Amino acid sequence: MNAPGGGMEIRVDRASTEPIYRQVAAAIRADAGAGRLPGGTKLPSTRELSRSLGVHRNTVVEAYHLLEREGVVRSGVGAGTFVVAPPGAEERDATGRGAPFAWGRLMRPAGQGEADPSRLLRPRAGEVPADPIQLTGAIADRRHFPLDDFATALREVMAEADTGLLDYSPPEGDRALRAWIVEWLGACGVAGLSESRVFIVSGSQQGLDLLARLFLVPGDAVVVEAPTYHGACAVLQHAGARMLTVPMEPEGLSLSALAARLRDATPKFLYTMPGFQNPTGISLPAERRELLLRLARRERLAIVEDHFDSELYYEGTRPRPLLADDTDGQVIHLGTFSKMLFPGLRLGWLIVPRELVEPVRQLRWAADLASATLTQRAMERFCRAGYLERHLRRIRRVNARRLEAMLQALAAHFPDEARWTRPTGGLTLWVELPETIDTQELFHEAAARGVLFSPGAAFYPDGGGRHGMRLSFNRESEARIARGIVRLGELIGARLRARRTSGRRRTEAVPLL
Amino acid sequence: MNAPGGGMEIRVDRASTEPIYRQVAAAIRADAGAGRLPGGTKLPSTRELSRSLGVHRNTVVEAYHLLEREGVVRSGVGAGTFVVAPPGAEERDATGRGAPFAWGRLMRPAGQGEADPSRLLRPRAGEVPADPIQLTGAIADRRHFPLDDFATALREVMAEADTGLLDYSPPEGDRALRAWIVEWLGACGVAGLSESRVFIVSGSQQGLDLLARLFLVPGDAVVVEAPTYHGACAVLQHAGARMLTVPMEPEGLSLSALAARLRDATPKFLYTMPGFQNPTGISLPAERRELLLRLARRERLAIVEDHFDSELYYEGTRPRPLLADDTDGQVIHLGTFSKMLFPGLRLGWLIVPRELVEPVRQLRWAADLASATLTQRAMERFCRAGYLERHLRRIRRVNARRLEAMLQALAAHFPDEARWTRPTGGLTLWVELPETIDTQELFHEAAARGVLFSPGAAFYPDGGGRHGMRLSFNRESEARIARGIVRLGELIGARLRARRTSGRRRTEAVPLL
Repeated sequence: MNAPGGGMEIRVDRASTEPIYRQVAAAIRADAGAGRLPGGTKLPSTRELSRSLGVHRNTVVEAYHLLEREGVVRSGVGAGTFVVAPPGAEERDATGRGAPFAWGRLMRPAGQGEADPSRLLRPRAGEVPADPIQLTGAIADRRHFPLDDFATALREVMAEADTGLLDYSPPEGDRALRAWIVEWLGACGVAGLSESRVFIVSGSQQGLDLLARLFLVPGDAVVVEAPTYHGACAVLQHAGARMLTVPMEPEGLSLSALAARLRDATPKFLYTMPGFQNPTGISLPAERRELLLRLARRERLAIVEDHFDSELYYEGTRPRPLLADDTDGQVIHLGTFSKMLFPGLRLGWLIVPRELVEPVRQLRWAADLASATLTQRAMERFCRAGYLERHLRRIRRVNARRLEAMLQALAAHFPDEARWTRPTGGLTLWVELPETIDTQELFHEAAARGVLFSPGAAFYPDGGGRHGMRLSFNRESEARIARGIVRLGELIGARLRARRTSGRRRTEAVPLL
Repeated sequence: MNAPGGGMEIRVDRASTEPIYRQVAAAIRADAGAGRLPGGTKLPSTRELSRSLGVHRNTVVEAYHLLEREGVVRSGVGAGTFVVAPPGAEERDATGRGAPFAWGRLMRPAGQGEADPSRLLRPRAGEVPADPIQLTGAIADRRHFPLDDFATALREVMAEADTGLLDYSPPEGDRALRAWIVEWLGACGVAGLSESRVFIVSGSQQGLDLLARLFLVPGDAVVVEAPTYHGACAVLQHAGARMLTVPMEPEGLSLSALAARLRDATPKFLYTMPGFQNPTGISLPAERRELLLRLARRERLAIVEDHFDSELYYEGTRPRPLLADDTDGQVIHLGTFSKMLFPGLRLGWLIVPRELVEPVRQLRWAADLASATLTQRAMERFCRAGYLERHLRRIRRVNARRLEAMLQALAAHFPDEARWTRPTGGLTLWVELPETIDTQELFHEAAARGVLFSPGAAFYPDGGGRHGMRLSFNRESEARIARGIVRLGELIGARLRARRTSGRRRTEAVPLL
């Protein structure tokens, strides 16, 4: 019996023990495999084919479903069923058995590839010599981890032999640690915060992920700073967000650009880092902070504030969180122990308005139930014992000296045309180089010379940043920082000279951001 | 100047310092607030309104965007802009300032409310007397946690003073623990597993969540068992999955029902618990296990196997994972330390085909970067030291006695019409009661009498289960288990007698599942 459709020839053997739907599927599979049904061919409708074969329509439906699971055909609602071009080398036998299972066809179409800006930060295999100078990564220097103090805290909570330590925590987190965070934020200016609004999360990364899942459907707009934290872009892009950027300026995010964005779009929220922004290290001055809050109130803009490194201030006092002056309840606050203390414990916090507490609780439970109880309890003990304060006092001194060493080395060894931020805290600063320098190229050259930095493109979700670089000043000794900057300065200088001798005129000084 | 549209009256004052878009927004806001523009009213198009007001079209666009952020109007692509009915008591002043920020409007529309089956498992506040008998929760008895052994493991890894303990783990997890899992699964029959396919996750819950995010777009079908683990339903429903169920039978999931499902649909995967299923405690016998794998191969069905409690076997040997006989690479495997050991550490594993390793790595990094390093290292030490095996030997003996106590009590105290499963391992069993008994009602009655169990409806994503109940036999002593069953038997008996005296005839024995 022959069916319509270019090249299709289906014979049904009613005497066979092979079910008819499998015979139909086998015939189509064979035709597709042999190229008689090229990729993109539209198959006849199930009604059409069942009529021409004289079989029940469900039999054809079943055959098409099997072929779809096999990845031989693909169907779209209302669009029909189409042959998928067979992958190059892959051979299928008539039953499909033994062929490699086609997982790719099961993956959701969007949100995969583009969502890995961190690939730009990875050197190629074998590229880096031993013991490179690490001016990359917004992470703490593990050599300063207060391991002994933490061991003490851990020993103490274990000694209490409370088996609850190893049992489930509630999704919102351990009560004692949440209470400590409320007190801590109280000291940062956040008055009257209710413990019920505080969630312990497995790092602020998870906090942002929960928010993305709470708010975003594909196509929703979110405003981010440019440059911004590449891990935030990964989360938001996985959720299908349309990323609207507002440029960072030497005084913090551009409010006029933000206002303009709000004229064109209805973003679900602004993701901002008002204190020691990653990657620039810039903090919003008090006036601009006030203006941002005023703009947000006037324009009814939700703010997600990531206060990830606000304790790492080296002059004056810590940056005041936006949450502290959130009169209308439109600020969500993220914090973490990862930057001021141990990233490997995966503990941070998320503070949401009352209205969102129950939805976030449900989302968190579905995502991974809760954070580990033991680490929450040990952290609470560590903080209560005063070990955190002691550690911060020490690390602020160390980091301040390293920042100073980097700024001095930059002034001495980077070309006149370069510009950089001068943070008063945090972990990183940002350099803008003349536009003849591509920092992605420079990255590989420097990696091969034993210096790692973070090329700028990783921090721009919409392109850009090719002439920028993020430098971390907190992972290496002052001497090694200086050595790294000298080496980078040499590489940059050589590139600039090469351009000049190739006939171009002297490069202009670049604007900072 | 007046604009078209029922009840709209907009006056623009060009002399005012208030920007025109804000004047337009204020007028519409006032009209909506006063009921002159009722909820559902379609606003004029921006072109129309800008023309009639004699202002630039962008001004109207801006006004509409502001109103949308305020929650006053809502727009759909291509559909126009509509007034939102104002919430009951909420009063807005002309600037919107001071009004509570409307977070609800920012939440993604779907996937919230229905995704919390666990609400069915929660007693009402104040309902439960002190020290209730816990026949609820598929969780271990924390009184048997090997706290001392774990303290030893923890002390040992801390004593090595490796600061890496508190630094980031790679997204795929600590290498030593992954190697241990490969060996462990080797002992379970999984030969030749490559370490590169193993991810450490924060509990198998997170593993399933990552898979849901990797595969599912809203509307995608997934096959689950009925009854099934309610936490899996929560994850899948949050991802917008269409849940197709196949009934559990006394010998495991119904293969004929599964085959029928595959005739009607193209599910992304089957989520199955082949060993000591939650909630029924049923394990797939070897023949049916083989048939399931054969069906999956023939029908090209992806399987997600949750092997959460396979070490808790009390007769014979552990159930063999489907992964062990996965010739065509179509099984994804989830495992966890939460059931055999400590749930509060949040450690489990996810084993994916090679093709999915990189996408899962990216997703995991975006979700929360990695699991905690310290707990991974301590767990590896604990397992290598033989503490896990020792703990399992002890807990298997304890649980076996408790299971036996529960089965005896059920036989003695539950009505003749009831039926229940007889697991040979795991943590829970399943009871079917006569259909005159609603276990959700019984749940609250029993809670008030100091006995907690899990009512059946929580385990059926598509309705059903009203006459079923899950009983946990692993959290209480044998004496208290017996006491709990006696009390439940009394409550059930009383309900049955009340039905009979109210004129109905004797209830028939119910079929098990």
